[in-house]
Amino acid sequence: MSTTLITNIGVLVTNDPGVPGCGPGPLAPVPDAAVVIDGDRFVWAGPARDAPAADAVHDAGGRAALPGFVDSHSHLVFAGDRTAEFDARMSGQPYRAGGIRTTVAATRAASDTQLEAGLTRYLAEALRQGTTTVETKSGYGLTVHDEARALEIAARHTDEVTYLGAHIVAPEYADDPAGYVDLVTGPMLDACAPHARWVDVFCERGAFDGDQARAVLTAGMERGLTPRVHANQLGHGPGVRLAVELGAASADHCTHLTDADIDALASGSTVATLLPGAEFSTRAPWPDARRLLDAGVVLALSTDCNPGSSFTSSVPFCIALAVRDMGMTPDEAVWSATAGGAAALRRTDIGRVTPGARADLVLLDAPSTVHLAYRPGVPLVTDVWRGGRKEV
Amino acid sequence: MSTTLITNIGVLVTNDPGVPGCGPGPLAPVPDAAVVIDGDRFVWAGPARDAPAADAVHDAGGRAALPGFVDSHSHLVFAGDRTAEFDARMSGQPYRAGGIRTTVAATRAASDTQLEAGLTRYLAEALRQGTTTVETKSGYGLTVHDEARALEIAARHTDEVTYLGAHIVAPEYADDPAGYVDLVTGPMLDACAPHARWVDVFCERGAFDGDQARAVLTAGMERGLTPRVHANQLGHGPGVRLAVELGAASADHCTHLTDADIDALASGSTVATLLPGAEFSTRAPWPDARRLLDAGVVLALSTDCNPGSSFTSSVPFCIALAVRDMGMTPDEAVWSATAGGAAALRRTDIGRVTPGARADLVLLDAPSTVHLAYRPGVPLVTDVWRGGRKEV
Ligand SMILES: [Zn+2]
Ligand SMILES: [Zn+2]
Repeated sequence: MSTTLITNIGVLVTNDPGVPGCGPGPLAPVPDAAVVIDGDRFVWAGPARDAPAADAVHDAGGRAALPGFVDSHSHLVFAGDRTAEFDARMSGQPYRAGGIRTTVAATRAASDTQLEAGLTRYLAEALRQGTTTVETKSGYGLTVHDEARALEIAARHTDEVTYLGAHIVAPEYADDPAGYVDLVTGPMLDACAPHARWVDVFCERGAFDGDQARAVLTAGMERGLTPRVHANQLGHGPGVRLAVELGAASADHCTHLTDADIDALASGSTVATLLPGAEFSTRAPWPDARRLLDAGVVLALSTDCNPGSSFTSSVPFCIALAVRDMGMTPDEAVWSATAGGAAALRRTDIGRVTPGARADLVLLDAPSTVHLAYRPGVPLVTDVWRGGRKEV
Repeated sequence: MSTTLITNIGVLVTNDPGVPGCGPGPLAPVPDAAVVIDGDRFVWAGPARDAPAADAVHDAGGRAALPGFVDSHSHLVFAGDRTAEFDARMSGQPYRAGGIRTTVAATRAASDTQLEAGLTRYLAEALRQGTTTVETKSGYGLTVHDEARALEIAARHTDEVTYLGAHIVAPEYADDPAGYVDLVTGPMLDACAPHARWVDVFCERGAFDGDQARAVLTAGMERGLTPRVHANQLGHGPGVRLAVELGAASADHCTHLTDADIDALASGSTVATLLPGAEFSTRAPWPDARRLLDAGVVLALSTDCNPGSSFTSSVPFCIALAVRDMGMTPDEAVWSATAGGAAALRRTDIGRVTPGARADLVLLDAPSTVHLAYRPGVPLVTDVWRGGRKEV
């Protein structure tokens, strides 16, 4: 393997958990920094003046650098779009989970090739914006065949694949939700478990209640999947507490929380993943990140990229929203979109620039990562390495 | 001159004022469209099947196309940035116009070369995001020399140059605002008028009151400059009514409006330019675009790009905000960011795709312009022609 030195980094955010101040608070970036990559790993990071020699050198031109974004929540295996529904919603119609059915019909009708082309398109779009790890889910098939093929296609492109047969009750089971839960926890799980790492459920009024969600998650856990939960997006409910009780890696959305929900998150090991793109595009109230941070909850910040409620693939956009509307500092938002996403995926090899971690690095056309919030909407990402390869 | 046919455009927004429905309401885009460029002008636009032959052909791959964005309000001749002030504001400190002084000090200290490098950097950044016309202002010099050099530098790069010596009272005149108005309307105007098309004033509590603003604008008008006004951003005031009374091309911000202000705008020829990037980055209340549209006011939508209150150069970001938070439909927002910006600059040769107009065209990686709001934060612009030249 040859080594590459990336030097003349204006400031480097490492998220090194061994460095004081590099937790989810202020980021304590390294000024005038450099990193060394060997193969697909970082082998060194620190002040440029102390950098070891390497086979190749890349001059970062004084740009700020940070770990590649970890987008721990997306729905990218789908067909069709929902422009008309979006247009109607912007004219005042409220968001309803039932719109998911539009995407289910289009996804079922699409070929594998079409689904994979869509997935790779959105992954490439995310990569250009600095995202080097993407979790993605099934949930627009809702038949044994269509859920399994979605996961198979996803697994060709990411290790972070989530079985979400319990996204909504399939239209064919509209009058028999219990029958659909039996399918999701039985034959569909049999077909899907080999292709997935995670099991997820949309625990919400209009989707699955607490008992149904528990059944889905525990069935998945018995097959070796680790739970994560769509919880408390549209209203209060049992999702967050169930996630913590079952040791889920993440409770996602967390828009409507009681004190008991926050206490549960603070006392457990479940990350709260906030998805402000959904609140933006559905005009919903913002999750209160400040309240969660002050309670000691670990936060991730992700896109929820999907064609219904949040059709953004831009983590920088989510950072800007989190700072403007959710009470996060720029540092907290950047940490949550990198190390926080890694925590929500129970990964210690990504979301940080430390020796041994995967060499995922982003350069910004900016003197600091604060500019991700200070310059909203501006595509600041100029260079991206993923697994040591320069991709952008 | 050789001609270029751009064909296989999925939908083309023309803003052709001769076509019913192509005003500031629904956009009535042309499906399966093409355009022909000859030199720096469009010479034809319409259904692809009817397109004439040309010397060269560009296949748009089914992408949506629209006129290049017209950003009719920015402040791009400056030095320094205000990251620390932004960080503090996001932690709860309110926006104050006095922060402008930080930029004034940095701008005065910068060389011409530094100022021009900054300007060209931000213009290039805007161009990559689809902006083909940029208005920009002085206002960070506040001395005769520094205002004039800002305008000279700006005029090398855009025809739309605005003299904003009356941005704030220069620090040297803190105890003598009347003296500063005398300077702005006297020797500074003498030095600046030859380099500018427009005269502007920040008519706001803490900056210039109605009488001062009137003096600045009328002095500029006597020197052949056309007025535009920073009006009603931070609170109610006389700015909007003064703008209409003096026949200003645009009243910009329009965040705090009385019924009388709206009546004035509706009955006059002054465009209301909305700048949601400022409300986003200062956490201010949103201008009510719906109320203005319903009253028949013509709207422009621009970035206000500046290092203090709105450091975004992204018109698509402003479109997404206008739709989400200001009551504009996606079509109205797109019209306002193109034809509306042109109206705010009293231009009929830009902001439209019609024979004779300047060949400024943007392609989107999307099937319609609604995606500019539906996919917030995502850099959708793939190709940009400006004056017939492919720049992106
Ligand atoms: Zn989701
Ligand atoms: Zn301004």
